[in-house]
Amino acid sequence: MDHISQISRVFILLASLITLFTNPTLSSINRNPLQDFCVADLQASPTNSGYPCKAQVTSEDFFYSGLNTPLNTSNPKGTAANSANLMTFPGLNTMGISMYNVEIAPGGYNPPHSHPGATEAGVVIEGSVLVGFLTTNYTLFQKVIGPGDMFVIPPGLIHYEGNVGKTQSRLLTVVADDLPSEVVLPNTLFATKPAIPNAVLMKAFKADSKTINMLRSKFTS
Amino acid sequence: MDHISQISRVFILLASLITLFTNPTLSSINRNPLQDFCVADLQASPTNSGYPCKAQVTSEDFFYSGLNTPLNTSNPKGTAANSANLMTFPGLNTMGISMYNVEIAPGGYNPPHSHPGATEAGVVIEGSVLVGFLTTNYTLFQKVIGPGDMFVIPPGLIHYEGNVGKTQSRLLTVVADDLPSEVVLPNTLFATKPAIPNAVLMKAFKADSKTINMLRSKFTS
Amino acid sequence: MDHISQISRVFILLASLITLFTNPTLSSINRNPLQDFCVADLQASPTNSGYPCKAQVTSEDFFYSGLNTPLNTSNPKGTAANSANLMTFPGLNTMGISMYNVEIAPGGYNPPHSHPGATEAGVVIEGSVLVGFLTTNYTLFQKVIGPGDMFVIPPGLIHYEGNVGKTQSRLLTVVADDLPSEVVLPNTLFATKPAIPNAVLMKAFKADSKTINMLRSKFTS
Amino acid sequence: MDHISQISRVFILLASLITLFTNPTLSSINRNPLQDFCVADLQASPTNSGYPCKAQVTSEDFFYSGLNTPLNTSNPKGTAANSANLMTFPGLNTMGISMYNVEIAPGGYNPPHSHPGATEAGVVIEGSVLVGFLTTNYTLFQKVIGPGDMFVIPPGLIHYEGNVGKTQSRLLTVVADDLPSEVVLPNTLFATKPAIPNAVLMKAFKADSKTINMLRSKFTS
Amino acid sequence: MDHISQISRVFILLASLITLFTNPTLSSINRNPLQDFCVADLQASPTNSGYPCKAQVTSEDFFYSGLNTPLNTSNPKGTAANSANLMTFPGLNTMGISMYNVEIAPGGYNPPHSHPGATEAGVVIEGSVLVGFLTTNYTLFQKVIGPGDMFVIPPGLIHYEGNVGKTQSRLLTVVADDLPSEVVLPNTLFATKPAIPNAVLMKAFKADSKTINMLRSKFTS
Amino acid sequence: MDHISQISRVFILLASLITLFTNPTLSSINRNPLQDFCVADLQASPTNSGYPCKAQVTSEDFFYSGLNTPLNTSNPKGTAANSANLMTFPGLNTMGISMYNVEIAPGGYNPPHSHPGATEAGVVIEGSVLVGFLTTNYTLFQKVIGPGDMFVIPPGLIHYEGNVGKTQSRLLTVVADDLPSEVVLPNTLFATKPAIPNAVLMKAFKADSKTINMLRSKFTS
Repeated sequence: MDHISQISRVFILLASLITLFTNPTLSSINRNPLQDFCVADLQASPTNSGYPCKAQVTSEDFFYSGLNTPLNTSNPKGTAANSANLMTFPGLNTMGISMYNVEIAPGGYNPPHSHPGATEAGVVIEGSVLVGFLTTNYTLFQKVIGPGDMFVIPPGLIHYEGNVGKTQSRLLTVVADDLPSEVVLPNTLFATKPAIPNAVLMKAFKADSKTINMLRSKFTS
Repeated sequence: MDHISQISRVFILLASLITLFTNPTLSSINRNPLQDFCVADLQASPTNSGYPCKAQVTSEDFFYSGLNTPLNTSNPKGTAANSANLMTFPGLNTMGISMYNVEIAPGGYNPPHSHPGATEAGVVIEGSVLVGFLTTNYTLFQKVIGPGDMFVIPPGLIHYEGNVGKTQSRLLTVVADDLPSEVVLPNTLFATKPAIPNAVLMKAFKADSKTINMLRSKFTS
Repeated sequence: MDHISQISRVFILLASLITLFTNPTLSSINRNPLQDFCVADLQASPTNSGYPCKAQVTSEDFFYSGLNTPLNTSNPKGTAANSANLMTFPGLNTMGISMYNVEIAPGGYNPPHSHPGATEAGVVIEGSVLVGFLTTNYTLFQKVIGPGDMFVIPPGLIHYEGNVGKTQSRLLTVVADDLPSEVVLPNTLFATKPAIPNAVLMKAFKADSKTINMLRSKFTS
Repeated sequence: MDHISQISRVFILLASLITLFTNPTLSSINRNPLQDFCVADLQASPTNSGYPCKAQVTSEDFFYSGLNTPLNTSNPKGTAANSANLMTFPGLNTMGISMYNVEIAPGGYNPPHSHPGATEAGVVIEGSVLVGFLTTNYTLFQKVIGPGDMFVIPPGLIHYEGNVGKTQSRLLTVVADDLPSEVVLPNTLFATKPAIPNAVLMKAFKADSKTINMLRSKFTS
Repeated sequence: MDHISQISRVFILLASLITLFTNPTLSSINRNPLQDFCVADLQASPTNSGYPCKAQVTSEDFFYSGLNTPLNTSNPKGTAANSANLMTFPGLNTMGISMYNVEIAPGGYNPPHSHPGATEAGVVIEGSVLVGFLTTNYTLFQKVIGPGDMFVIPPGLIHYEGNVGKTQSRLLTVVADDLPSEVVLPNTLFATKPAIPNAVLMKAFKADSKTINMLRSKFTS
Repeated sequence: MDHISQISRVFILLASLITLFTNPTLSSINRNPLQDFCVADLQASPTNSGYPCKAQVTSEDFFYSGLNTPLNTSNPKGTAANSANLMTFPGLNTMGISMYNVEIAPGGYNPPHSHPGATEAGVVIEGSVLVGFLTTNYTLFQKVIGPGDMFVIPPGLIHYEGNVGKTQSRLLTVVADDLPSEVVLPNTLFATKPAIPNAVLMKAFKADSKTINMLRSKFTS
């Protein structure tokens, strides 16, 4: 054992000289956050892990106003929203939640869309709203709901909301993501740059080139 | 190689005879859910991983009513809530979100409490509400907010809401958990069964036994 | 301290009598699997956390055959696949990976679809293949690739593959999920039961009812 | 198909010219660390994802001394600790573990506190220790333990330790977090800056303003 | 809109009749545990997600004794351990931690082994211990440590401990897993059933068949 | 309440003056990525969370060539691979997948090794391959497979592949990690710098110093 012990002592001396140039990467076993919160500093230069935390935080950073401001729904969809997400309410950074005040005019619709990886829920404040979602097994679940009614959309599923009443409707919704991304349909198929080749869409829609061009023309101006 | 190859072939024959009684445990590398949703079957016998999924699901499973029903706040706290969580709205199972309609009478308070591991957010619908939370660095962040104002409480931090106006206040809140647990203060210190030994609380409150008994008496009836 | 100590001793006696009927739920802080693998027992009654592990495992459970079997692409899409996923290869349970042998006839297309939450990658074995995907910012990335070329589709994005050559093409693909779900477009919009109301699709496609009915007719037979 | 193929080829040429200014954010599907460890460089400027990894690592980085150094427990709590966490032992960075040598004088107590999101466990080395924790269902679990006895505190629950013997006690504890945060009670209620409004605490303690002021006075000096 | 509204109402009637036989699988977006803890019921029949929670829990479930019991190290390795893990201390279920009292006789070694996915740390209680680990870049980090010294082994790396002093040594160690698995070297290469073909080991050790047979003979009795 | 309200208003004024210098660390509750992808900028200076995202992305970033290029297997192992991982195909950054074209000469072997935390799977393209892996319970699972056959290696387990046929064999493999680390056996035991002390290996191999020196000599040149 003495022999080993001696080797070990020599090793300790050597070790302080030997250095390892570690690869410029990360190790992320630890899942616990190291501080209570991280208010985004939107003015700072972001790293690959998102916006840095603000150094100076006040009470104001955890509050947001305007989720009851009347909205202008005079647009083709008849839908408008005030969004409290990471970009408008930096205190939501890393909180995993964003909220929205949504107004829909009578006959208006928020067309089919999905939020990849994030649950959505909401409560109707005013009016009569049709809420529906589509499963990956081609089932539609939908219902007309009114004030005080809540809905939940499972994460990633395509869903829509529409005002099926005669007066303006209003909802408060929440998405389980600071800054949800959105896949909008059929816009994603027709409005990308560059365009999806016609042959792809012809096969998908089981339609001829003329029909595809007609459909696409609505989304390219 | 022929020799190896032969061993291998023999092995294949043997392998269909050899069996391994695996330990009764789990492997959980795969994080993707295997279906679109899992509406809880609250009538079924639960396993250690929660309630089983309902076999027959309809549109009704994804909607809940009552988040605008007037609440009776004639209680010592002056606070009442209608809760849409896993137990009342089984469609929220695995969705990671629950919602609450909260009313607070003038002068009423929802005392300090925390939701371990879950962000809370909310929007004031009516009235004037004081919302505050406490960091682990002994900082208090608080603000009086009104209709259309939103707040966010970082996960796990102690927080409170109070009606500091002259009329009934109402909030819609969301917690990022299907069925959030709640640590209520100082109730957790005084109302457990069995009771925390007086010596522990005397040291914690830097107080004598008489004071501790007085404080505790409010929570044991 | 003696007083406390005595209380404590009494408590210990009581504690073996006192019982707590815990709620029938789960706690899941521990992320490490408790065994090396969990081959799915597809014959057993599944729980809410998926298929139970097979008790008797042999070498055969970790191998699958047929990813080079010629496929019949005489169908409207001109596309066919042999799938090694949880249902056909139970050893993939909890492994987070499934693989596919895909053949596409000249002019054939695998129409736009997405795998919620799962990366896809693949290598062309034979032929000339157009691979494209659409970002949530309406950008299209696509390229024609040949044998030995690899592509990667970021998780959740809509993508398509097509044979743009003159001979049969073949790919080996991998999806980072044991049993990926699939959102197929525009099928999901037109083929659900019940159907999405025309009004929703009219708004989405900026089209009249007649156009929607025409588009839908291709997907309902 | 030729037409498509041609479009595709033109696209490839264009694609090397087209550029996408991606938003300054992150994508984090990949959960595997890219290197074996990440010893924190406490001298470097941290990013929002914690301290950078040291470039030059030696054996010394993975060892820490002093977890048996006698501690001075002559303080009001009668408790002292030597902490091996991220700030004192940078090799623990991302390891998800910190360890503590704790001494408690006879009659001393480590008052009620919790570590959000992190399990705690420990072994008594010397003396007689009362260990207790409080569930969110108002149940107290506690026991007096001695040398060689181990305890576990479920993550996030309020717990305390006390020396109920006649001689100094010593424990080695572990918390499943590199740098655990701590919510200390009732300190968090009385010692924040600014102070929680009296009205909040009056409601919480079911007490008058005089009692609250008396309680608070112990924590503000 | 009336038309739509009517369709919707009819749908609601139909929806309560239409049922969906969901696939027998799971959805696991929600990461928050539904109760404070889950003491394993080792007598119950386990599911694929581990042992069910005990229905009746007492204080005793959170304590374990024996981590200072003298151990018999009269074996070839000169090493022995008392293990507090899920199987011996069911209260550790889902807690993500297990602890060990380890004794090593002078000249004894705990040979190279790894714990897949789990950090290990430990503190020397008595004696002089050599602790070393091997990176995936072929670097060895090691040091001789004594009482009060702590070490950390990054998750998954091969490590060993040896008594390089003249008296019995003792350590308290912690592994960040309720029930860590262990890959022991070179045992895993020589002691499996069936045996690894000689050709594989000849290539790996760059040795002839005779040498492999000699090495293997030590591990097969 | 007026009193409180007044305090609150004063607080709001103060709060904009009070600042909190937060610790330079992170909070990471939010698991959803903030953008669709993050192509690694290998030229940039990496942070502790890996390579920054490239600002300008084109279609080319998501494609890689060469997974069918003939490989030179004239080396002692008789094995060679073309690797599409984070360092060679930066578009794989955060995608959780890397792919490999592997060739093995007749009689060649890829010796025992493991990929910590990552599943491996693969498909034989040409030839006859022996694939085996070792569990932590000392069981060997292995089989000889041919073209179109797929294998899966559970994460972290030691495995090997060998050509047991008479012609060159070729596989396409996938590892569920952008840049998998690799523990190679027995190389890790014999080829580290500094070397593992002989005493450790003598105990592990149950062999004398001469045998260890002989074994080690093959790996140090």
